[in-house]
Parts: sequence; structure tokens; C-alpha cells
Amino acid sequence: MLKVSVLGAGYMGSAITFPLSHNGIPVNLWGTWLDGNIIDSCRKGYHPKLKKALPDSVHFYNSEDLLPCVEDADLIIIAVTSEGFLSVYKKLLECSNKSPLLITLTKGFAQDNGEVKRLSETAQRLFKERFPCEEVLWVSVGGPVKAVELSNKVPTVTVFGINNQKIKDVIGLFATDYYRVSLTDDVIGVELASAFKNVYAIALGISNSIYQSLDKGHCDNLNAFLFNQAANEMALIIEAGGGRRDTVFDLAGIGDLYVTSQSGRNRKFGDYIGRGVSPKNAYKMMLEEGEVAEGYNTLSKGMIYLRQLGKGLLDELPLFQILYRTVFEERDFSEELKAL
Amino acid sequence: MLKVSVLGAGYMGSAITFPLSHNGIPVNLWGTWLDGNIIDSCRKGYHPKLKKALPDSVHFYNSEDLLPCVEDADLIIIAVTSEGFLSVYKKLLECSNKSPLLITLTKGFAQDNGEVKRLSETAQRLFKERFPCEEVLWVSVGGPVKAVELSNKVPTVTVFGINNQKIKDVIGLFATDYYRVSLTDDVIGVELASAFKNVYAIALGISNSIYQSLDKGHCDNLNAFLFNQAANEMALIIEAGGGRRDTVFDLAGIGDLYVTSQSGRNRKFGDYIGRGVSPKNAYKMMLEEGEVAEGYNTLSKGMIYLRQLGKGLLDELPLFQILYRTVFEERDFSEELKAL
Repeated sequence: MLKVSVLGAGYMGSAITFPLSHNGIPVNLWGTWLDGNIIDSCRKGYHPKLKKALPDSVHFYNSEDLLPCVEDADLIIIAVTSEGFLSVYKKLLECSNKSPLLITLTKGFAQDNGEVKRLSETAQRLFKERFPCEEVLWVSVGGPVKAVELSNKVPTVTVFGINNQKIKDVIGLFATDYYRVSLTDDVIGVELASAFKNVYAIALGISNSIYQSLDKGHCDNLNAFLFNQAANEMALIIEAGGGRRDTVFDLAGIGDLYVTSQSGRNRKFGDYIGRGVSPKNAYKMMLEEGEVAEGYNTLSKGMIYLRQLGKGLLDELPLFQILYRTVFEERDFSEELKAL
Repeated sequence: MLKVSVLGAGYMGSAITFPLSHNGIPVNLWGTWLDGNIIDSCRKGYHPKLKKALPDSVHFYNSEDLLPCVEDADLIIIAVTSEGFLSVYKKLLECSNKSPLLITLTKGFAQDNGEVKRLSETAQRLFKERFPCEEVLWVSVGGPVKAVELSNKVPTVTVFGINNQKIKDVIGLFATDYYRVSLTDDVIGVELASAFKNVYAIALGISNSIYQSLDKGHCDNLNAFLFNQAANEMALIIEAGGGRRDTVFDLAGIGDLYVTSQSGRNRKFGDYIGRGVSPKNAYKMMLEEGEVAEGYNTLSKGMIYLRQLGKGLLDELPLFQILYRTVFEERDFSEELKAL
């Protein structure tokens, strides 16, 4: 039987244990140095974020026990934050005795030799340094999945971006009646869509709370405009980054953007900003509650990434620029929007 | 100055008077035989659906006064239900002394010589019968606009599908700081997207109320899947109908689908079905409250329209078929969905 380890005991890392255990696969779940309380609580039968017990077949590992968690793993699922990704990943490679199949739920960018790169780019380069004779087998996971709903067995369809057709069979480990996996070979498209949708969801949060505070009721017209603008800017980004436009107009793009803009951490981060909290404080407040607004980091690293892709691109991304100015230059979102 | 008349005093017909009056354009607003109470109330300074007074520059006409309302109109905006469209439209042509520019907010299909046709197709044919020497100048309006929000001056962007570049200047009559108009020459795409999004919004209503009643909380994962499936089926429909795929992945498609699936009458119709009300009764109950679930009619006429477009097409539209079976054959939506 395949040995499966999951790194990161937050929402997604923990939720993914449900379909695996449904399929009879035992899982080693490792908590980062920030997940200590979660692991302790899980051992007592309660995941504090998912608000339920994880499946019985899950074995828990504290942050100091990465080696026993992963040394013989065939398949490793990485579900830490983008900020923590590289440090965890480097430790993982040191601990691995054999080259594992890597599946990442983490989305974002890494600082790599003075450039900002997609996480999978950097990760694959590091993999080849560690296992020079092995093929990298890599999956970037995207698509509309709220972890709590997955753990509640709400019907869910996800997208696996795979870099090698050999990996196709891996979906059999995950697929259940409530969790379906669709495949694409557009790893870049899935990865960029997953990362940037977190940025654009902030916009819908900001506008919502601005209009609520103005007592004007809903602003679905404006949010629909923002949603569409976001999707079309993401299409330009992904084409420029080497992915396929079609990936955006599918589950990994508009599907994921839909779910993320309904609720979730990045939307909440936007809500705070719309209510007048400074972006820096909003990020901090959420961090103190154990919530990471990934879009904040992706907005900052993403700006560098987009600049690297070429000067003209940013001109075609007015909403991205407005978000950047709102979050990092504390400009007024509504005022900025008028120019759009 | 242009003489502008609006036919239909429901949500959209009434809301469109706000940007026009903002631009100093007086409007004749005519109520259908179902709008008698609305017109009476508007004269007293209160629109019962928008829950506010309409602008002072609006003149009100009862259903028996169509002739004085439209006889000299240069520009006529049609905002009746798709069910009422043809009977109103035929009367309009009889009453018109000169050939008007036609802007329609109505979306759907008409029975025309034994076939089901897009409303604009039939309307343009009838126009040529009445004004054989005149050009048809036609605008189909689409895009994400909830009428109440427009009347609240929430920033809104709409799409005008125009059949002739001569009409371009008409947008100057409508555009304000809170209402922007984008143009496309894909009338078919706008019209079909506007019609079918009402059908697909029913799906999100059904799934939401099913999951609420199961006490499973939100089902955003499932709704994101349905949203994406809807967008991609709409793209196939519009290509088959002679429109452009790109129109779907823009304001008139995903933008409008977004706003419609957040709330609105078709979503509400789906909510009733998900709670176990028979579709026929749900439609009736809403009608008694003065609300027309357009998607119900579009689903039935749309099925005939799609069959006319060719046999293979329906096979590629599993969600449309599931909705049809749920609404007209009272099959169980969740059960049907499993096969998708």
C-alpha cells in the first residue's frame, strides 16, 4: 500500500484526509511549528478549524517529527501556507529517503535566486538537486474547494494539474462519491489561477463592506463586474505566464474564484479593509486568530512576478493595480475604482 | 430632444428611468395590464417593487394608453416579461407613427411560425413587415444589473448588443457615473446568455436550499461547480446559436450569471423547488406575489430551441437536461446530479 503523508494540519491539509480515509488509505498528518495546538487537539478527537474529529486512520505528527512522518512516504501532500512553503519543502527533501510523488495544495510564489517564481518552478528545481536521477512527478491542485465543506462531504469537484501522464492513476486514491477529481496538464494555469484568485477575492470583500456601511444594501451589480474583470485579468496573466486561457474559464479559474469570493479568508481580509481597517492591521488581526490571508502575500510577490513577465502586462490589469495601491499604498478603493 | 418610452413598469423598466432622468431625458413609462397597481402607486410617488419614488421627469401611462405613450417615440425600451413580449410588441408596431430605435431588456424566446426563435429574430421580422423601407435598429441589453441596485445608484456596468454601428451614440443617453454601458455587436450572444443564465440560476437555488435543509451549512463547492458547468454549457449553446464564445466569458455571460445566482427571482424559484415545492406550484406562488420566474419559461421554450439547433448539442448540456427533468418531470435534482 502507498504511504501517504500530509504536511500542514490547517484547513485543507486536514480536510483532504477525509476522501483518502474514505478510500481506506492511512495518512500521516504533520503539523508545522504553528500547528502545535491543532495536533494536540486532533489527538483528543477534535480539529479546531474543521470543528470535528479527523478520521480514525490519521496518524498525527508534531513539527519536530517530520523525519518519521515522511521518510518512507511514496506520496506527499503539501498544504502549508505559501509563506512557509520553502522552509518546509527543503526540510522535506532532506528527510526523504526515496523520491516521492508531490501534490501541492499551496499556491503562490517564492523568492528564488533574486527572482520571484511560481512555487512549483522552484520546488521542481530543488527536487532535481536532491534526486538528480529521478523524474519529478508533480501535481498542483486547484478548483473550488472549501475545506469545511469537503469535510462535510458536500459534493466537490477539484482539478489536479499534473506534469506527467504517469500520475493519472493517483486520482483513484482521492476520488469518492462526494469528491471528484478532474485532470489537466496545464500545471501553470492551475497554479497561477489558484494563486491570483486569492488576490481578486479581496476586491469583492472590500466592495461588499463599503456598500454595507453606506447602508445601500447589496452591491451585486458591482461585484459581478469585479468578478468578470478578475476572470479576464487572470486570463491575461495566465497566458503571459505560459498557461492556457481555457483553464481560467473552467473550474480552476472561474469555479475557484466563485467559491473564494463567496466567503473565505481573503474575502474576510477585504471586508476588514472596506470597513476602514488598515490592510497591515487586518492581516495581523487575522493572523492572531490563526487565519492567513494568502492574497496579501500573493499581491506583493505577484506584483514582482507580473513585472518580470513584461512591462505591458500590468497596463492590462487595472483591477490588480487598484488592489495593490489599496493594500500597499492605502489608497481609497472606491476612488481608484472610478478610473476603471 | 429624443422622445423615449419605456414599456413595462416592473423592476427593470422602472429602474432604467433613473440614468435617463439623470441625463435630463424625460421618459414615458407605460404599464401593462398587469402593472395597473404599480402605475397608480407610482403616480402617488412610490414604486412598490423598487420601494421608492421614480424620478419626477417620468410620465405614467396606463395599459389602455399605449398609443399616446408611444406614437411619436424615437426610442422605445421594452421591459415586459418574455411571455408578454409578442402581444405588447405587435400593439407597439401598430401604434408607432415612425420607425423607432428598439432597445429590449426582455430575454427569451417566441413561438414563430411553428418554430421557437430568439425574441429579437421574430421582432426584427415583424418590424420589417410594418416598416418595410426602414432599417431595424436594435439593441439587446445584457450584463449584470439588479434593478433595485441600479435605482440605488450602485456602480453598474451593462452590455448593449447592437445590430448596427449607427446606434453607438445611444449609449450617451444612458451613461452616468454609476451606470456604464459597454458595447458589442454580438446581439445573439448577449440575447442567449441573458436568457439561459435565468435557467442555470435555478440550479444554484435548488442546491442551496437542499443543503440548508440537510443542515450541512453552505454548499459553495457544489455551487461553484454548477456555476462553472453553467458557464461552459452556455458557451456551447451560444456558439451553436451563432453567437461568440467570448461573450459568455464576459459581463453578459459570467457577469450576469454571477449576479443572477446570488439572488433574484430565478434563484428564489430554485429555492422553492429545493425545499420540496413542486415546480408548477412554485411558479404559481411567485406569480401571485407578482414575481415572474423567467427561467421556467426559458427552460421549456429553450429545450425546443436547443433541439432545433441539432441533436448532438443536448448531449453536451447535461446540467440543462437535469434542470429540465427536475422542473418538468419532477425528478430528484440530487439524484440526477450524481450522474453528472
